[in-house]
Amino acid sequence: MEETFVPFRGIKNDLKGRLLCYKQDWTGGFRAGIRILAPTTYIFFASAIPVISFGEQLERNTDGTITAVQTLASTSLCGVIHSIIGGQPLLILGVAEPTVLMYTFMFDFAKDRNDLGPKLFLAWTGWVCVWTALLLFMLAILGACSIINRFTRVAGELFGLLIAMLFVQQAVRGVVEEFGIPERENLKQVALQPSWRFGNGMFALVLSFGLLFTALRSRKARSWRYGTGSLRGFIADYGVPLMVLVWTAISYAPVNNVPKGIPRRLFSPNPWSPGAYSNWTVVKDMLNVPPLYIVGAFIPATMIAVLYYFDHSVASQLAQQKEFNLKKPASYHYDLLLLGFLVIVCGLLGIPPSNGVIPQSPMHTKSLATLKHQLLRNKLVSTARKSMSKNSNLGQLYQNMQEAYNEMQTPLVYQVPSALGLKEMKESTIQLASSSGYIDAPVDETVFDVDKDVDDLLPVEVKEQRLSNLLQALMVGGCVAAMPLLKKIPTSVLWGYFAFMAIESLPGNQFWERILLLFTAPSRRYKVLEEYHATFVETVPFKAIATFTIFQTVYLLACFGITWIPIAGVLFPLLIMLLVPVRQYVLPKFFKGAHLQDLDAAEYEEAPAINFNISFNDHEPQQRNPHVDSGEILDEIITRSRGEIRHAHSPKVTSSTPGSQEDMKPAYSPRVPQRAHSPRLSELKLGRSPSETGKGEIKQTPSPRPSPLGQSPYGSSFT
Amino acid sequence: MEETFVPFRGIKNDLKGRLLCYKQDWTGGFRAGIRILAPTTYIFFASAIPVISFGEQLERNTDGTITAVQTLASTSLCGVIHSIIGGQPLLILGVAEPTVLMYTFMFDFAKDRNDLGPKLFLAWTGWVCVWTALLLFMLAILGACSIINRFTRVAGELFGLLIAMLFVQQAVRGVVEEFGIPERENLKQVALQPSWRFGNGMFALVLSFGLLFTALRSRKARSWRYGTGSLRGFIADYGVPLMVLVWTAISYAPVNNVPKGIPRRLFSPNPWSPGAYSNWTVVKDMLNVPPLYIVGAFIPATMIAVLYYFDHSVASQLAQQKEFNLKKPASYHYDLLLLGFLVIVCGLLGIPPSNGVIPQSPMHTKSLATLKHQLLRNKLVSTARKSMSKNSNLGQLYQNMQEAYNEMQTPLVYQVPSALGLKEMKESTIQLASSSGYIDAPVDETVFDVDKDVDDLLPVEVKEQRLSNLLQALMVGGCVAAMPLLKKIPTSVLWGYFAFMAIESLPGNQFWERILLLFTAPSRRYKVLEEYHATFVETVPFKAIATFTIFQTVYLLACFGITWIPIAGVLFPLLIMLLVPVRQYVLPKFFKGAHLQDLDAAEYEEAPAINFNISFNDHEPQQRNPHVDSGEILDEIITRSRGEIRHAHSPKVTSSTPGSQEDMKPAYSPRVPQRAHSPRLSELKLGRSPSETGKGEIKQTPSPRPSPLGQSPYGSSFT
Repeated sequence: MEETFVPFRGIKNDLKGRLLCYKQDWTGGFRAGIRILAPTTYIFFASAIPVISFGEQLERNTDGTITAVQTLASTSLCGVIHSIIGGQPLLILGVAEPTVLMYTFMFDFAKDRNDLGPKLFLAWTGWVCVWTALLLFMLAILGACSIINRFTRVAGELFGLLIAMLFVQQAVRGVVEEFGIPERENLKQVALQPSWRFGNGMFALVLSFGLLFTALRSRKARSWRYGTGSLRGFIADYGVPLMVLVWTAISYAPVNNVPKGIPRRLFSPNPWSPGAYSNWTVVKDMLNVPPLYIVGAFIPATMIAVLYYFDHSVASQLAQQKEFNLKKPASYHYDLLLLGFLVIVCGLLGIPPSNGVIPQSPMHTKSLATLKHQLLRNKLVSTARKSMSKNSNLGQLYQNMQEAYNEMQTPLVYQVPSALGLKEMKESTIQLASSSGYIDAPVDETVFDVDKDVDDLLPVEVKEQRLSNLLQALMVGGCVAAMPLLKKIPTSVLWGYFAFMAIESLPGNQFWERILLLFTAPSRRYKVLEEYHATFVETVPFKAIATFTIFQTVYLLACFGITWIPIAGVLFPLLIMLLVPVRQYVLPKFFKGAHLQDLDAAEYEEAPAINFNISFNDHEPQQRNPHVDSGEILDEIITRSRGEIRHAHSPKVTSSTPGSQEDMKPAYSPRVPQRAHSPRLSELKLGRSPSETGKGEIKQTPSPRPSPLGQSPYGSSFT
Repeated sequence: MEETFVPFRGIKNDLKGRLLCYKQDWTGGFRAGIRILAPTTYIFFASAIPVISFGEQLERNTDGTITAVQTLASTSLCGVIHSIIGGQPLLILGVAEPTVLMYTFMFDFAKDRNDLGPKLFLAWTGWVCVWTALLLFMLAILGACSIINRFTRVAGELFGLLIAMLFVQQAVRGVVEEFGIPERENLKQVALQPSWRFGNGMFALVLSFGLLFTALRSRKARSWRYGTGSLRGFIADYGVPLMVLVWTAISYAPVNNVPKGIPRRLFSPNPWSPGAYSNWTVVKDMLNVPPLYIVGAFIPATMIAVLYYFDHSVASQLAQQKEFNLKKPASYHYDLLLLGFLVIVCGLLGIPPSNGVIPQSPMHTKSLATLKHQLLRNKLVSTARKSMSKNSNLGQLYQNMQEAYNEMQTPLVYQVPSALGLKEMKESTIQLASSSGYIDAPVDETVFDVDKDVDDLLPVEVKEQRLSNLLQALMVGGCVAAMPLLKKIPTSVLWGYFAFMAIESLPGNQFWERILLLFTAPSRRYKVLEEYHATFVETVPFKAIATFTIFQTVYLLACFGITWIPIAGVLFPLLIMLLVPVRQYVLPKFFKGAHLQDLDAAEYEEAPAINFNISFNDHEPQQRNPHVDSGEILDEIITRSRGEIRHAHSPKVTSSTPGSQEDMKPAYSPRVPQRAHSPRLSELKLGRSPSETGKGEIKQTPSPRPSPLGQSPYGSSFT
């Protein structure tokens, strides 16, 4: 994106791009059919559960002025509007932890002022929202989002880790509080006797750790050995909500003599309770706010504006990482403008505003990539089967599959349909087949194994549409009505879910991986290379990595620490934004440019680690495993092992073609293949560069040390 | 072992064999130095903790007649005697779960007889022990142990799984009882109010699952990425006792308002308490037992004799599996004779007798294999370093290492020292080097990477000595004195430890793996092949595997079920022994001989699965990881992935030499290399047969499907 600040240009471009695919955003969603429910429910839970607990948290922090009903309403309202008229439908909106922090800071400030107090608090936040919205409008119109590329990895990942820390903090605090006396409760309750509180706390430990472990396990269900493929797929798709159900059921197991109130369950007024509507008419109180406070509202407003500008853009950026191969354009400026409107609406309704959320937004894209993969796969497999039953030769087979693939592609007006996914692979395989004289023979399963080879052909693509976003927002809205059911969830299950969300967001965060690297034994650092394709381990001296990581950690702790300061904590968004100029102007004074570039690759790219299970096949010729679940591989790619790959024009790339002397050097010489096109599943799986694929693997996978003598695989070079 | 039943012949042979190495049994132990403490403490905990909980269990079941003091005393006394004058010092003795069951059955019988009652119970068991000992003498003298080879996998593994089930039963029952009211307690205690019992139960869940998870994790510490190698090694060696300490410390964390008695801790009288000695003089009561009961004692005695004959022999057999490459002879007959004496001694002292225990005995051998590996490695590495610093050529290097290796070998009078471990490897590498003309050049690290290649050379060997057994038995004896300290351990930690022991004993149990196979999705059955080298998956039709496994499971459940029957449960050893003739005469009527042979390989042999991390190197030439911890590999071999290999004379073996057509067949053709000698670490790691090693790896590790066309790695064979 070019950095131009001509007013309205960014918004206009965004609108133009998105309008072209607007219709397809809906038709594509509906065409996916029932399968759309998998990503929808996945995101619905990821979105609703934190919002509910944030509501609980806010209720406690604001003496009941804001409850889960308000946070759910805001999330649903903003979500519905954004999914219908928003720019980037991959972006998920919700009331986020930073918003909760800001509202807590504001309430702490307001409650002690005589001329404001809890009564006018919401009216005052209405003014804060108005100011915030004006600032957001200005930022959007002036094209502030065009500097999005300066929000490099350092800032984004630090923010991601801060969110994870806040989640873990909430989880720990929540479990600890299960041992204590909740504020709003009647002290004479049986369940609040010390003995029962002890039992309640211990039960909470069991429930929250139980949820955490089983939820983490269920996400890996696709690679389980047991059960049928569809069962495993179901558990992987719906395991987390399922576990919330299971542990809620378990929480009802102790009945004998255990008093009501153990375990503690979600607390929230029903939306139809008297008084629940008091805050919806906040707009008429707004003129009662003393003028000084109306002006003063500008101070928190700037902080919130900075926060939302950053958070919204980074969430959007993370949802559109390069490895997803998105086909539709981004929409940073227009989305920021829309966010301004949403903030005003929420402010006037007296509910906390929503903005783009991490980690739910990237989770959304990932789940849609899995969906798209399933859809593409089904189509191509059936095409290939049909084609083979007609005794097609290899050329015809690919022709048919190419046509089917193109059919599935979004017919975008403004873009040449890219069919790279199949084309390259087709050429290399056909070339090989023709050189062997098999090109005209009818294809059978020994030449083209449908189940497996189709996976090899499929690129990573995302089902980009608006339906899943709309549906999840509507479901969040439905939660307001389903409050009596939600109240059956024990709070301890929520704390476990918070920890789960934090842990789920860690893999792929390079900052986190570097922190781990600091604690890794020197002799095992090579494992980081294997698991994350972390180029920087090869190219940057360890001392520089360590210094950089320690700096980042100190900065993170400072950001985390500032949120603990009672009212000045309101400034924490500034500290995060400050990282962008620090990265650009200060860090280069302490680190070499090349090192910085490697440690802070501006784009998030993808070259997943070699999947051990599969690479294993390379020297076990008898074992073809036609049924490796493709979803499993995709899981690997998009959840576990993100890393950067170098660009083809990078001067540091060492060719991995056979015979290259570098290949024989021991230890840390670079081994990342050149790659200038979109990664394809088959390559990712086997860790091969495309040039290697299909050209007689043997020479190109030399064994490192076939004998204790350590000769090279090409004979004997005792150098 | 030949099946001869000439009286005393077996005992004589055993004594002759063991006497020859008796001196070395001690000198070898002392020469190991301080490192002997790792296996010693490991086994001490594995031995002491169950014995203590069995003591608790017996105390409850026998109304306090037998306590942990008695079980510990028996284990220690028998252990010391066996380690000094026993035959096979790898065998660990202890009071076992079956003994506890038998004593419970006997107490249930005795307590209701007017002329016996609880008062004469111990005197009566004295008679039972006398009869048992006579039967054991007879069995030992007549050479009953020479049919040990008929105790095939089916019986041994079924017994192992039965023990695991009893352990899990104890763990579950223990945790459930934490919610209830313990029998012996004063009901007015605060800790027994319903509210505190609930808290106690929940706390028990936290402690026992905490111990279980952390203990399981700590055993894998060697492959962790974090921490230094020595720290990881320490955690892997001592992690389990460490975790008992940690969780005991955690159990003291809740202090506020929590009454004494939460969590519940180990209960046992101190050995110096009044009355604790009452049963040591049981011998003078023995003549007070009515003659009818003296004769009747023969019935439980036969059961116990059958049980001990089976249990002792199988424990010894499991401690001497072929994959351990033991150098010293077995001693089944003599050990059974000695067991007879020990039973009499225990009976007269009024303590329950000890016998060879599973899974501690094989655990002992495994930990000694790790020890031996460390010792050998240190020696060879220093020799190689010294040799290279003197600019030796490859021949000299191997010469020196061979000498150092031979030095470390036990100089056994009756056996030709086998130096196969180094010899073969040396020949093939020297041959290769000489053909390349490098034979005379001084060796440097590029040719011989000391750290790594020494590991490649080392065979699996076991530090066979008596010291670790003696020390652990003495430490168990020390527990009697340390009772006040042991009482600080929460009972819930013990339940977690029980579950841990059960789970630790499962890997390598083929019966267990077959049960899992029944639940494995058909498309994933190939994974069993990868992980366990389970030949039977390839050679036996799935239906036969399933039938066989279901039969075995039903038999197991029958054995388990019979232990639940109040007094007739005393017959359960019969049912287990019955499996030996059933296997020999009944099963062949229902299954094909070849299938039975594969499903029930008579010997436990070893061809560990390929270690994914390491095989991974085969096609990543730049990555030599010189610091893969050899202990880690050994861990893999001896704990995780046991399986059978076919013998070289087996007609079914398919050669895995290059070019063999079978190699190209998809799916389940056999891929286990021929092997007629002891496995060596390097081969095990890389899954190579020795013939392949060092001969130019490339051709022999063809990639299965380098392109979607599925051509063979040797060009294009579209067959």
